[in-house]
Amino acid sequence: MDLSRLLEPERVAVVGASDEAGSVGRALLENLSTFEGEVIPINPNRESVLGTQCYPEVGAVPDVASVDLAVVAVPAAVVVDVVRDIGEAGIGSVVVVTAGFSETDDEGAQRERELVAVAEEYDLDLVGPNCVGVINTKTGLDATFIQGKPPEGSISLMSQSGAFIAAVLGWAAQHDVGFNDVVSLGNEAVLDEVDFVAEWGDDPDTDVILAYLEDVEDGREFIETAREVTSDTPIVVIKSGRTEAGAEAAASHTGSIAGRDRAYDAGFQQAGVLRATDIQEVFEFGNVLAGQPLPAGDEVAVVTNGGGPGVLAADAIGDTRLTMAEFGANVVDELDDLLPAEGDATNPLDIVGDADVDRFRRALDAVLGADEVAGAVVLSVPTALFEFEELAGVIGDCHERHGKPVVACLMGGDEADRAADELKAYGIPNYFDPARAVPSLEALADYRDVRGREYASPTEFDVDRDRASEILSQALERGVDRLSVEATDLLDAYGVPVPDGALAESPEDAAAIAGEIGGPVALKIASPDLLHKSDVGGVKVDVAPADAADAFRAIRDRATDHDPDATVLGVRVEEFVDLADSTETIVGATRDSQFGHLLMFGLGGIFVQIYEDTAFRTAPVSEREAREMTAEIHAAPMLRGARGRRPADLDAVVETIQRVSQLVTDFPAITELDVNPLVVGPEGAYAVDFRARVDRDELSRSL
Amino acid sequence: MDLSRLLEPERVAVVGASDEAGSVGRALLENLSTFEGEVIPINPNRESVLGTQCYPEVGAVPDVASVDLAVVAVPAAVVVDVVRDIGEAGIGSVVVVTAGFSETDDEGAQRERELVAVAEEYDLDLVGPNCVGVINTKTGLDATFIQGKPPEGSISLMSQSGAFIAAVLGWAAQHDVGFNDVVSLGNEAVLDEVDFVAEWGDDPDTDVILAYLEDVEDGREFIETAREVTSDTPIVVIKSGRTEAGAEAAASHTGSIAGRDRAYDAGFQQAGVLRATDIQEVFEFGNVLAGQPLPAGDEVAVVTNGGGPGVLAADAIGDTRLTMAEFGANVVDELDDLLPAEGDATNPLDIVGDADVDRFRRALDAVLGADEVAGAVVLSVPTALFEFEELAGVIGDCHERHGKPVVACLMGGDEADRAADELKAYGIPNYFDPARAVPSLEALADYRDVRGREYASPTEFDVDRDRASEILSQALERGVDRLSVEATDLLDAYGVPVPDGALAESPEDAAAIAGEIGGPVALKIASPDLLHKSDVGGVKVDVAPADAADAFRAIRDRATDHDPDATVLGVRVEEFVDLADSTETIVGATRDSQFGHLLMFGLGGIFVQIYEDTAFRTAPVSEREAREMTAEIHAAPMLRGARGRRPADLDAVVETIQRVSQLVTDFPAITELDVNPLVVGPEGAYAVDFRARVDRDELSRSL
Repeated sequence: MDLSRLLEPERVAVVGASDEAGSVGRALLENLSTFEGEVIPINPNRESVLGTQCYPEVGAVPDVASVDLAVVAVPAAVVVDVVRDIGEAGIGSVVVVTAGFSETDDEGAQRERELVAVAEEYDLDLVGPNCVGVINTKTGLDATFIQGKPPEGSISLMSQSGAFIAAVLGWAAQHDVGFNDVVSLGNEAVLDEVDFVAEWGDDPDTDVILAYLEDVEDGREFIETAREVTSDTPIVVIKSGRTEAGAEAAASHTGSIAGRDRAYDAGFQQAGVLRATDIQEVFEFGNVLAGQPLPAGDEVAVVTNGGGPGVLAADAIGDTRLTMAEFGANVVDELDDLLPAEGDATNPLDIVGDADVDRFRRALDAVLGADEVAGAVVLSVPTALFEFEELAGVIGDCHERHGKPVVACLMGGDEADRAADELKAYGIPNYFDPARAVPSLEALADYRDVRGREYASPTEFDVDRDRASEILSQALERGVDRLSVEATDLLDAYGVPVPDGALAESPEDAAAIAGEIGGPVALKIASPDLLHKSDVGGVKVDVAPADAADAFRAIRDRATDHDPDATVLGVRVEEFVDLADSTETIVGATRDSQFGHLLMFGLGGIFVQIYEDTAFRTAPVSEREAREMTAEIHAAPMLRGARGRRPADLDAVVETIQRVSQLVTDFPAITELDVNPLVVGPEGAYAVDFRARVDRDELSRSL
Repeated sequence: MDLSRLLEPERVAVVGASDEAGSVGRALLENLSTFEGEVIPINPNRESVLGTQCYPEVGAVPDVASVDLAVVAVPAAVVVDVVRDIGEAGIGSVVVVTAGFSETDDEGAQRERELVAVAEEYDLDLVGPNCVGVINTKTGLDATFIQGKPPEGSISLMSQSGAFIAAVLGWAAQHDVGFNDVVSLGNEAVLDEVDFVAEWGDDPDTDVILAYLEDVEDGREFIETAREVTSDTPIVVIKSGRTEAGAEAAASHTGSIAGRDRAYDAGFQQAGVLRATDIQEVFEFGNVLAGQPLPAGDEVAVVTNGGGPGVLAADAIGDTRLTMAEFGANVVDELDDLLPAEGDATNPLDIVGDADVDRFRRALDAVLGADEVAGAVVLSVPTALFEFEELAGVIGDCHERHGKPVVACLMGGDEADRAADELKAYGIPNYFDPARAVPSLEALADYRDVRGREYASPTEFDVDRDRASEILSQALERGVDRLSVEATDLLDAYGVPVPDGALAESPEDAAAIAGEIGGPVALKIASPDLLHKSDVGGVKVDVAPADAADAFRAIRDRATDHDPDATVLGVRVEEFVDLADSTETIVGATRDSQFGHLLMFGLGGIFVQIYEDTAFRTAPVSEREAREMTAEIHAAPMLRGARGRRPADLDAVVETIQRVSQLVTDFPAITELDVNPLVVGPEGAYAVDFRARVDRDELSRSL
């Protein structure tokens, strides 16, 4: 797809152009007055609009096929006909600002389906409907009906909320955030966020992509497209519905609220998309990514003429992944030369209140020239010794000479604002509060990691897919959607290690299986109706083979006592896994409506229940991603052998996560699967219990 | 203490006044040009300074005793003499801006001691040295040498960093933050943060106290003073050294870095002081607390003309203690009347992009008039339908009529800035980003709780203080600073429940004690040299009385094997406490150099080690505070009976915390004390193991 005629048109038709005060058609024409190309008003009731000749319909425009873009602002009822005319006339790009489609009622939804059909018929690149329009600063194209013109720049912004664009344009202009394209996505009937990610990924004029998103239609497609784009162009997203209150407000889903946001977090992480938590941050990240080089490391120098603000900057660094650089002997020597007696060549580097710009320059040269410093925060309070604008020039110059990222906090009022303009020329952002400056530097470090990482395909393990199919078919035949220990072989078929064992249907069976195992066994009720096996007395562990038959009877009787109607498929008899020296973990998978399967890893029990100490990725995962999951939980040290214990076999966990990933990816009808616990010892892991749930309809279609 | 002559003087002498360009003495005089009272330059080398008659020394000023304040800006070497002259002349208040005192070297520290001696001799209220001065906006007094004049207001600010004040004044003026007093505390040789907390607590012109602090000299005094003040006047503090990187940068301590900040957190919490995490927040909290009433509840309504920003506001609310208000039937009816067809009477309330100010007014009236709404966030994106300034008036009017707190996000550029001025007249802050607006509303709710809480004195339990003294004396006689199970009676003396038992010095002893207990016992090595008892095989549990003698021998032998030189005081033999159905908790106390003893509560093992899931308070704690500690850990549900277990006896834990608090408060020489574990079951708690450490010198003086 190539959206250049949409975003950089030469001829633009405005259908519904009007000179009526307060009308959208007039606002569009007024905003388009800055457009370098030709604007062609279309309105059957007018000869001319705002002094420009008007045509009754697009078909009447001379050489209409060379019109690049049509902007549609007519009543909802006639939009579909107008768009058909546009397609018929050979215009390939359309922006429909009109509201009254799927965001309203059934009638509107029907209208939107018709619109999509027409767009498909004529292969139209269509933005909207129900959007505020599009902007391209390079050509002066402002095909929106909202106020505020953004300055030119290399950031491209898209938003699923038109109000968001209306809200930020004025502020962005005030804060010197420059844009290339701005697109209001509206209802995304045709073009959606993925199309613009792809378009801007290929666009040399776009250095950074920013997005306000409320939802992603196709998570997998988004991840795959964004993953490629972020290897070259950073993407920063603010995704609303981040907290429970926000998600309820967005009301854009039906499943688990917290779970949904985790899917986005995981998807963004895997796609290399940076996620901002507030509006200011989106634009701050955008600005710094557009203006500054990436740091080679995480070590930051803080250079300041005021002690207190320096400590606050260090505090802010402590809140991030960044670290305070430790100056080596060479730097300390250089600094000792330039600091007054009361100065101290440590980081944060307080060059003292009587510093002039020259001392700033020498200090910056010393620290930015050092290998142990990857970037710098420069703070200054106003003093009588220099003007901020002069200091801004020095900072910019040092930044350019050393090629390392720098952010500034020239703290003050109007004087600081003037200096910010000077710094902007060097791509250096200025902040009042160090607590805002530091996260921007961190965003650079985060994006450096995104760029540096190599995408590895998920490993394809050699598995017994047919056997898995067969086990799922059996469940289907039994008429249930829940699987438990009776289907343990499902895991085995995919190479997930399970204790040796089999399903016993009688006490004699149980004795025979236990005899074969030849050591202590565990027995577990297999029933789709008794999910909490332990609670109903359905589990016995460390049973001698000689006692296996009795244990079978006891378990079956208790199950029947508990629920006489429960279907009992039997009792699984398996090798007893001694938990001593082992850790209980959980590997889970839940199907998400947007992102496919979401994989979860965590430690069992209170770790997950009380602390929600879990890691998520969307399936399928690569080995690197599976390994990241085991490393990023807080309790990771427990697995690595904290408290004098032998380290757990992490490789076995990493492989289990990948194999579960492959299983649910091969069988999308599995809606939930929990290996809980996956017991991990120093020499291997065992899936000691498991549960799954399937979408029966989908399963029957796919098998 | 009454600091009104310092902060609202009528006659001010400036010692070291000068007209030399760039000098501090000149900057002071220039800044004082706005002062309504009399400015008297003092300089032996000049007849007049900047056109005002100059005196050679304070003693030469006519009617010198009626001079209220002397500002000193002379070289460090002569400061002490000058201040003596000031005291001699009968001037009671002094601000020393000169640097070169304890912040520099030994000589400077000596100079500061002399300055303190002079101040004490003449009973001077002295600010500084090494500060940028003081400001009182009501009298136009700007006795600082820095740039920027804050607007008048009801916020009083103090700072231990002069640079902090220099950094924020310009920004604060730009953002319309109005001040009453601004004080640069400098080295706090005489007056410190506690003095100004007390002064401003009594000052009718100060509605809110803000502070930038790097350290608090006397934590107990600060807590006690601030606790009284915050019942009437909110205090917001930004305390640097919050993170490890920040604390290292502040380098203001020697002990545990993270621990130190926890002491501050606990102290601020107990004193009712709100803690801000960044500079902007300090002033945002200050502004909202000065301008808005306190909400009766935590339920917030969001009213917006743009859906996206509304959802972002809900997200921000999800990040706080605040909740989204649920509109009752009456409100819904009212809203249904005023909303267009596509509108929805839910919260966030999107009154849709075509809303005019009248719809805003009606919507605000509906939600603010409802009991289920305690406050509101009003968001607006710019539209062609109204000017922000008009909307600002409507918001202010609704706020005044309903008397509930309101914050605004009129999102945009210059237009928003103009509207902010209008809102300011109603005390309503305006923000660009909802993520900043919501924490301000939360600060109001937090302060409402501070105001509402009743301070209860710590309970004085009936304890056996003499016996505790005796046990500590025994440790002193043994020449050790570490106490362990041999001193279990220390806890018993203070009513902390311990298992029945005694110290056995021989196998026969052990058998006798066990026989008396008459059931299974636990044996634990008592040795100041073997702190990790279990690691050296020094503990045996669930031992039958008949085996107690053997167990004694085994423990003693293993201890001797492990460290032949270890002093072994014996083996404690005590009732074995079965851990089934119980939870291991930790109650600890560590002495902090500023705040006295810091009490800690948490669950044992990984809860503390991996998740640092702990609650802290400074001792002595009231029952309410002890109870809060048990409630605020994440794992609190474990104690309340999660996962099908019987609830633990929380009252026993709460009482144990209070008794430990009383013990360490009575014996400040105890530098560390850990009850670990305190085993808590459904019917009581037991201190199953404990360790303590004492400051021997202090202990020998106090006993």
